[in-house]
Amino acid sequence: MSRSPGRKQENHKISRELFVLTYGALVAQLCKDYEKDEDVNACLDRMGYSIGIRLIDDFLARSAVRKCRSYSETADMIAQVAFKMYLGVTPSVSCNSATGNEFSLILDKNPLVDFVEELPAERASLCYCNLLCGVIRGALEMVHLAAEVSFLQDKLKGDAVTEIGITFLRKPEDRKHRRN
Amino acid sequence: MSRSPGRKQENHKISRELFVLTYGALVAQLCKDYEKDEDVNACLDRMGYSIGIRLIDDFLARSAVRKCRSYSETADMIAQVAFKMYLGVTPSVSCNSATGNEFSLILDKNPLVDFVEELPAERASLCYCNLLCGVIRGALEMVHLAAEVSFLQDKLKGDAVTEIGITFLRKPEDRKHRRN
Repeated sequence: MSRSPGRKQENHKISRELFVLTYGALVAQLCKDYEKDEDVNACLDRMGYSIGIRLIDDFLARSAVRKCRSYSETADMIAQVAFKMYLGVTPSVSCNSATGNEFSLILDKNPLVDFVEELPAERASLCYCNLLCGVIRGALEMVHLAAEVSFLQDKLKGDAVTEIGITFLRKPEDRKHRRN
Repeated sequence: MSRSPGRKQENHKISRELFVLTYGALVAQLCKDYEKDEDVNACLDRMGYSIGIRLIDDFLARSAVRKCRSYSETADMIAQVAFKMYLGVTPSVSCNSATGNEFSLILDKNPLVDFVEELPAERASLCYCNLLCGVIRGALEMVHLAAEVSFLQDKLKGDAVTEIGITFLRKPEDRKHRRN
């Protein structure tokens, strides 16, 4: 009485909703585990970091992108290739500094919060999607780019858009080079 | 300096890897929280249940399936439509009982364990993917089908395949009807 359907080539795509709800369960669990929002945020960032350092291999293998030659190109790559691939959305990118090492990824719509109405009053400092910051930070570190990544704006907190800030930390030799 | 790419129609598909790694982070967190595997399994099942009762609306809306007329049709629907939609794989289905209310979903490959090599020795009783059982149970309950759902075999534990057992719990009126 076994019915085995014809198998198609397996693909890597899944529906977002199960992910979004599972992510919600993860955040809810951490909110049970930690009283302070800051501890939840730090834990999400750490988890994201561990994910990022593993995900980068998958990203490089599947995207087959060439090496980025500038921070600007790297920020575009994160927005247009990585976000598209892993979350199905493409943030817009803006450069925030004359020195060219600070960027924002701006999401009109954050797919991770599809099922979240608003943060409870007692969780006002929660960065609900902080895992993403950790993922970006971890993945960048694996391609030898140190960066600080954090939420600058969040629709969940009443901001007009959701904005992730990426500050590439210049290496000492970069600075020396620029001075010459 | 803002570069906004042309927006295509947003789709619901995302890449599986981020989900799989996030799920791994969730299980790891629960293993920190609970000493006993049974407690982790129960928590994953509860979380899955909460997800299932929300996911069913999304499933019914997007799949546009008609009402199933038998347990067998329901089991096929879970395997061929729901698993395909949410996890990108299609388990084969087998019926395990003459009474027609016990089914197995058999996965040659379980996408949720892509990055898991094997369970640590001290976690031998962990049902790593138990969230899925809860999701199925919760979703079925929302279409008025009570069921017990559990892992019968698990490749992570050395079994040849991964097998999820679904036992539909007959309603008293069903039994009466069959007796007539």
